[in-house]
Amino acid sequence: MENPQNCDNSLKPKAIAMSSNFFKSEELKPKGTSYELDSFLDQIPFNEAGLVPVIAQQFDTLEVLMLAWMNREAIIQTLKTSEVTYWSRSRQEYWVKGKTSGHIQELKEMKADCDGDALLCLVDQKGAACHTFRKTCFFYQFNIENQSISISSDTPKK
Amino acid sequence: MENPQNCDNSLKPKAIAMSSNFFKSEELKPKGTSYELDSFLDQIPFNEAGLVPVIAQQFDTLEVLMLAWMNREAIIQTLKTSEVTYWSRSRQEYWVKGKTSGHIQELKEMKADCDGDALLCLVDQKGAACHTFRKTCFFYQFNIENQSISISSDTPKK
Repeated sequence: MENPQNCDNSLKPKAIAMSSNFFKSEELKPKGTSYELDSFLDQIPFNEAGLVPVIAQQFDTLEVLMLAWMNREAIIQTLKTSEVTYWSRSRQEYWVKGKTSGHIQELKEMKADCDGDALLCLVDQKGAACHTFRKTCFFYQFNIENQSISISSDTPKK
Repeated sequence: MENPQNCDNSLKPKAIAMSSNFFKSEELKPKGTSYELDSFLDQIPFNEAGLVPVIAQQFDTLEVLMLAWMNREAIIQTLKTSEVTYWSRSRQEYWVKGKTSGHIQELKEMKADCDGDALLCLVDQKGAACHTFRKTCFFYQFNIENQSISISSDTPKK
């Protein structure tokens, strides 16, 4: 997976106009309308780096765990293997979540939004989603009353 | 809100290295560690367009409703008004969600993730989050078994 073949195309941004037109044309169609995977992925408006943001949500508790990024090949690999695979922007490589830590995300469901520019993965998170060993990455809590932010949970790895 | 004053700085990208160092230095600190809003926002690694992705989640059912984008000023406005305000990338303007449709999002909680590069808003969505009048924008369902995608809900506005 570090150097997958035949995925150069995944890094080429798609024309946003084309994609918008596609999603515009489909959005009022009835439940059950279906699309082939490849042709649907052709319409996703990947950003200039070939990426789309992906929300990971624990399938049973519905806790939002993290937000990361996939390119076309990462989407395909995630669907093929049922192990959620992102593109690491900092390391510039594929990132099979939990490959080194054991904290894998087993894919339960994948969804795309109305514009095709965001994905939602319902997953079964083994261990912690966050590299700090917290269950969720979203541990900075805004305090609306007093306009401050505070850490909302301890890490088990202090 | 269309032409807010004193928010030119919000469009300038912050140095990613600086931001990463900040979040790296804070990530193991204990529950309750707190930060002033302005100095925390200074550390958010907004992208080259000055934006950060924001997940909107219904606070009681925990359904993920949509993903959109905020700049620094939109974050501040959202906290001030408790009405979720995004930056519309297609219209290039502030977007008080529901301003025209009435489908506002009342802010219940806001969180940031471990790297500060994603936000999570727990909201009370009035009406539908999606412009198609579906409750959630995530209505394209990937069918893992047969590698296809299908629309998972009808719009009330067919």
